[in-house]
Parts: sequence; C-alpha cells; structure tokens
Amino acid sequence: MTEPFDAPAIIAAKRDKHRLSDAQIDWVVDAYTRGVVVPEQMSALAMAILLNGMDRPEIARWTAAMIASGERMDFSSLSRPTADKHSTGGVGDKITLPLAPLVAACGVAVPQLSGRGLGHTGGTLDKLEAIPGWRAALSNEEMLAQLEDVGAVICAAGSGLAPADKKLYALRDVTGTVEAIPLIASSIMSKKIAEGTGALVLDVKVGSGAFMKDLDQARELAETMVALGTDAGVNTVALLTDMATPLGLTAGNALEVAESVEVLAGGGPQDVVDLTLALAREMLAAAGRGDVDPAEALADGRAMDAWRSMISAQGGDADAALPQARETHVVTAPEGGVLTRLDAMAVGLAAWRLGAGRSRPDEAVQAGAGVVMHAKPGDEVAAGAPLLTLHTDTPERFERALEALEGGFDLGDAPAPRTDVVLDRIG
Amino acid sequence: MTEPFDAPAIIAAKRDKHRLSDAQIDWVVDAYTRGVVVPEQMSALAMAILLNGMDRPEIARWTAAMIASGERMDFSSLSRPTADKHSTGGVGDKITLPLAPLVAACGVAVPQLSGRGLGHTGGTLDKLEAIPGWRAALSNEEMLAQLEDVGAVICAAGSGLAPADKKLYALRDVTGTVEAIPLIASSIMSKKIAEGTGALVLDVKVGSGAFMKDLDQARELAETMVALGTDAGVNTVALLTDMATPLGLTAGNALEVAESVEVLAGGGPQDVVDLTLALAREMLAAAGRGDVDPAEALADGRAMDAWRSMISAQGGDADAALPQARETHVVTAPEGGVLTRLDAMAVGLAAWRLGAGRSRPDEAVQAGAGVVMHAKPGDEVAAGAPLLTLHTDTPERFERALEALEGGFDLGDAPAPRTDVVLDRIG
Repeated sequence: MTEPFDAPAIIAAKRDKHRLSDAQIDWVVDAYTRGVVVPEQMSALAMAILLNGMDRPEIARWTAAMIASGERMDFSSLSRPTADKHSTGGVGDKITLPLAPLVAACGVAVPQLSGRGLGHTGGTLDKLEAIPGWRAALSNEEMLAQLEDVGAVICAAGSGLAPADKKLYALRDVTGTVEAIPLIASSIMSKKIAEGTGALVLDVKVGSGAFMKDLDQARELAETMVALGTDAGVNTVALLTDMATPLGLTAGNALEVAESVEVLAGGGPQDVVDLTLALAREMLAAAGRGDVDPAEALADGRAMDAWRSMISAQGGDADAALPQARETHVVTAPEGGVLTRLDAMAVGLAAWRLGAGRSRPDEAVQAGAGVVMHAKPGDEVAAGAPLLTLHTDTPERFERALEALEGGFDLGDAPAPRTDVVLDRIG
Repeated sequence: MTEPFDAPAIIAAKRDKHRLSDAQIDWVVDAYTRGVVVPEQMSALAMAILLNGMDRPEIARWTAAMIASGERMDFSSLSRPTADKHSTGGVGDKITLPLAPLVAACGVAVPQLSGRGLGHTGGTLDKLEAIPGWRAALSNEEMLAQLEDVGAVICAAGSGLAPADKKLYALRDVTGTVEAIPLIASSIMSKKIAEGTGALVLDVKVGSGAFMKDLDQARELAETMVALGTDAGVNTVALLTDMATPLGLTAGNALEVAESVEVLAGGGPQDVVDLTLALAREMLAAAGRGDVDPAEALADGRAMDAWRSMISAQGGDADAALPQARETHVVTAPEGGVLTRLDAMAVGLAAWRLGAGRSRPDEAVQAGAGVVMHAKPGDEVAAGAPLLTLHTDTPERFERALEALEGGFDLGDAPAPRTDVVLDRIG
C-alpha cells in the first residue's frame, strides 16, 4: 500500500515552523496508530510541536484525528443530562470523589473516565481502589446502566476510546514531550469528546505541584481546551485553581478517601469543600441545571447516599475500614511561627516516595501510604508541634520522603495571605 | 544495574535550553549505543538539539563520546604522513576519485573511509563499484598494507568505528533530524578522528544541491568542525565550495568515474580540476608537504599511475569498459541563449530518479544511470541543441527525472557571472 505522505517530511515541516495541513495531521495520527509512523518519528514530531507550537485549527484537527482513531460513546439515551470534570492533576486532589456523587445527587449524570497516577500526582482510580472490593473496570453497558441507576460512575477508560492518544501519551511520557500545550489539550479533549459528555468542567491547576507552573501557561491551556470542547459541541468551561499548596490535609490513596468521606459527611477541609462546590455549580450550570444548589445536597446527606450507591455498584464496601499504613513518622515544626508556605510538589514527591504513587505504569501502589498535613499555610504552629505525618508500609522509604520535604515549607512571623482556591474562570 | 541518569530528564534539559553536562552527554551516547536509551528518546533529544542547539564544548564532548563508542585506528606505523578529505555531499562530486591518488602520488597517504549515497547526493563507494571487480570492503590490516604500498585507499568504514554515530545517523535520517549543525559536525568528525588521520581537509558545500543552503550556515558548520578536529590533534582546514550548480559535466556512478579518469589523464572539466588541485594543496600543506606541487603529479601521469594501483589493489580492472545505461533521453534547449543557471538539486534529483541513487539504505543503484551535462552556466547554447542527456536502464524513470528538471535551468541573454568553485577557507 502506498502512503500519501512521508513521516520525515511532516516532521521537517513542523521543525521548520510550518503549519501542518489537515491531510498531514489526519495521516500522521492514523499512520502512528497503525504503526506505519514509528515511535522515533512521532517523538521527534512531538518535540517539534512542543518547541514550535501548533495553531488552534491544527490542534482542533489533531484532536479530531485522535477521536477518529477509536470509538465514541453515546449517553443520549439517558434520562438525565451529563456533565464531566477533568483535573490536570495536583497533589491531594481528591475532588472527583465527593464531586461525582454530589452532582449526581443534584440530577446531573457524571460519566467520569479516570486514570491511574504516574509520578507525584495521585490517580483517582488508585484512591478508589483503596476501598475494599471496589473495581475500576466496567464494560460500556455496565457504565451506562450505572449512570441511569446511580447517576455517577468513576471507572477506567476502556481501550477503545482514542487509542491514538493512549499510545501517544505513553510515548510522550518517556521522551520529555509531556509539557506541550497542544498535545496536553488534544490528549485531554480527545478522550472527553469521545466519551460523549454533554458538558465538561476543566480544573486547570496552577503552581508548583501542577504541570502548569504559571498562570499565563495555565490560561493558554484552559482557553485552548475550552475552544476545542465548544467547537465539538461540548458545553465547556474551565476554572484555574491554585496548586501551590496541596488540596486538603491529605495526600495518598486511603487517606484521601477518608477525607472525601468527611466532606460528604458535611465536614472536611474548607479548601476541598469550596472547590468541590465551585466545580459542582459549574457542572450543574453547564448541564442546564444552574437552578440547583449543591450545598443543600451536601448538607442534607443526599451526596453521601449517592456516594454509597456509587461505591457499592462497583463492588466496593463503603462501610469497610480503609487500609492503614504499617509505619508512621512525624515531622515537627523546628520553630514556632506561622506556616507561610507548604509546597505542593514537595508533599507530592514525598507521598509518591512513601509508596502512594508509581514510577512505572505497571507498578503497584500502597493503599495506606501518604502524607497527613497538620497545618496549612496561614496556620500558627508551635515549636515541636507535629507538622506532617508520613505513612508507609515500607519504612526504608522515610529517608527519601524526608529529602523531598527539605525546603518544602517555611515558618515565619507575618500572617500569610490566604489565597482563594479558584484563581480565574474561562468560558 | 542502576543507570546514573534518566533519559527523559536529559531530553527535558535540552528542550528547556540548558547545557548538557559532560557526564550527561557521556551517558546518553553510551546508553543509546547499549540500547538503554531507546530510539524514540534519542530522536526527541536530536530534535531538541536541532532546535535549541549545543555550544562548542557540548559538541566536542558529544563527538568524544561517539568516538569512545568504538575502536580507533592508528596509522603511526606508516612511513608517510596521512591526510584525508571529507565532503559534506554534493551533485557530481567525484573529487575523491582523482584526489586520493593525486595526493598519494605527492607522498602523503590518504586513508579515505567513504559511504554509500542516500537521496540526491551520490556516494563515493557507489561510483567506484561501477568499476568491474572493485570491492569496497577491506579489513583494517588490508587498509594499512594498501596505504603503505599504494598510498591511497578508498573503502567502506568498518562497523567498529564510532558505532554510536552509525546508529544515530540511521535514526536521524528517518526522523527529520539530519539538518542539525551540532549533529552533522559531530557525526563527521567522530569518524574522521577515530579513523586516525593526521590531517583533514573539509569540503563544505554551499548552495541548492548541498545540505547547507547558505554561506553563513556553511561557515558555522565549517568552523565547528575545524575546531573539533584541531582540539583533537588533527590538523584541520575547511574550504567552503560552491554547490549551486553540479560539479563537472556528469552526475552518476560510471559517468563520474569516466570523468575522473579524464581529469587524471590531464583533461576533464575545469571546475573539477580546480577543486581537485585546491583540495590537494590543502591536504599536502596540512600534512607538512606544502612544498610539493600537485599540478605536476597530475601533468606527468604519476596521479594516473597511483589511480591504477589503487583500483587494482582492491580487485578493480582499471582498463575494463565501464557499464553503460541501456537507454538515453536528450533534453534540448527550448531557445537559444546563455545558460545562466543549472540547478544542482534539480540535476541531483534527476540522477537519483534515473537510478543512480537510492531511497533506502538497502536499495541497489544502477552503475550506468545519471545525467550528462552538455553546458554549464556561462556557456552559450543554440536553440534545439542538446543540454542534458539522461541515462538509465529503466526508461519508465525518464518521466519523473524530467519532472525534477522542470525549472531547473534558465537561459538568458546576459553573460552569467562565473563563480569560483572555492568560496572561502576556514582554519
């Protein structure tokens, strides 16, 4: 079979800062999926895209080509509108756990296809798998049935959705080409558009613990994704949210499940509650249910009921005790003062090194491992008081976790300015 | 075994415009040779190097790491000094053929390790293989013996010399990363330094038929290579030479052998004679024999004698008839006038498409295929007179060769300014 294009010529075009044509993009994505364009060609192209960029029409076409590489889901048979949320990944970001049942309790179905964690950010599936019995793999039919019955499902994306993206993401991960806005935007949006959600709220993280370290980059990513979703008929908005410090008081799998249950029970850290409600309001509004107040569903226990239904529908025992790490180590405040900084990346790396995260896709994670924070920026801490408790099953990991935390927090005497979790809104 | 570095981190460093440390370069080149750094990682790094550059010390270290990947040859036991020449590749560039025996006839040994052609530029070995019986493969011992006996050898580089370069070049060729000055310079110089020549003259081509399209780029490449050679103890100079139009009146394998023999017999096109003598003078001077005039050795037949010895030492029959193509097609001048432009790339592509070159490394070439030029820029041509004769064994190739020549020449009424072949000298 004769191919209409030649991979080196397409790579050279992007290398030399030219636009790729629709036909070139369609071919290169399809040929990569078929194995005609080989990994070393796609990684060179990814690096050229990272360094030389793509314009909006190129990104839209690239996204469409990735969607066309696989199946598309269809939720139009549901009796309820659908809304999904995607976070670009942060430390302590357990928001999906309380959010999905909360939005479901307000009458909007949440079809959340999630992933496992890699590196310093946790994965939603890893967190839920800390619940005894819970399983991430559902067939499309099971997913649709659970959406109709319970209104919320959090499960693993099947291999049929945007296989080009799956293959490309694995390649980018080992070739230093993750941090390309066109490729991040098209990766996220190809899966979300193929998933068939009617509305989508993007939580774009900004700060040390996020992929996007500064607000301008994050805004560019958010605007790109909102445009892609809107053009594809998905009602899309984005919140830019703070990831300079971890969300809530826990980073880890079972630890974050426990904190999420506290939020659903009406308690929990204020930042987690605030962000959960802000995202719920956006999802409801984007799905045409802006009249419903999610704070009521949180307060009156409906969100907790939906959580229990969602967990048990996937085999999980919502009442079972969560796994606990075998060993703990307490980090105390070396002096008294106000905690002026607690770095998200430092805490994320520590949790990862304690066993909460993985370095390779096939690695197992520890359900009980992670970091509990006893103070957040702005809190006063006495000298010698506990600041962090590290949890792991394998105490030889403490040393490298402590190294990660070196320089990860500051104690001062001036009160630290509290930052709102939500920094900006796009869409 | 634990590796001291992580390929994605090194890729990310160059992507983010940082210098690579000596230890990073040593590791990444060695780990790529060992297969620990995989092709998709090296191609992403190559693209980052192409777009973000390397400074001189980085290039020197990269070159040293490629040399260290294999063996080094040693000609110190020879009774004569050694000098080699490397051309960056052009159309009709048969200069090595008369040059090596000419310099040998002047008392300096020429250990020329050559390659086969790929794309529009011909390969020296492909040309010599048009001679019945001639073989390119010699052992190191055969090469050394021939250098001592004959004074000149042109043969295939063994697999032991800079294997990292061999592997990297094949990768760059399919990933749009050939055109990176740091990688071109280190590729050429790693082989030439490992080869063990005492002196080296670089023929850096500039113009449409060359990799380097403009003089500034070519000068940068030449300066980089001269610095690399000098620092490694090789007496290195570079000539920047014109490749806007083909060298001589032939482009093809047997066709160029015949033209080379004409030069050795005291005839041949003036530009080929001029460049051969200019390079010979540089090689002799760099090897400490600047007192010898190569024009004499060309005029009195000593160069031809050395040619015959060199060919027969490698099994070739210097008296045998050269292969001729089965079919020819003449391109005539559409109007009368002065040939003001004859584009090197157009002629090179035509010769390639006629069968003189290859598209894949394992493809065979036609010995007789190519282009004979009946005029060069500055020559007057009558309307309807032959301008080019195309040669091939496979006449279905004429059509695509003629397409390559469309727009490849101009006829005018003003006399075209003749350009000197040698444009500049570095070193």
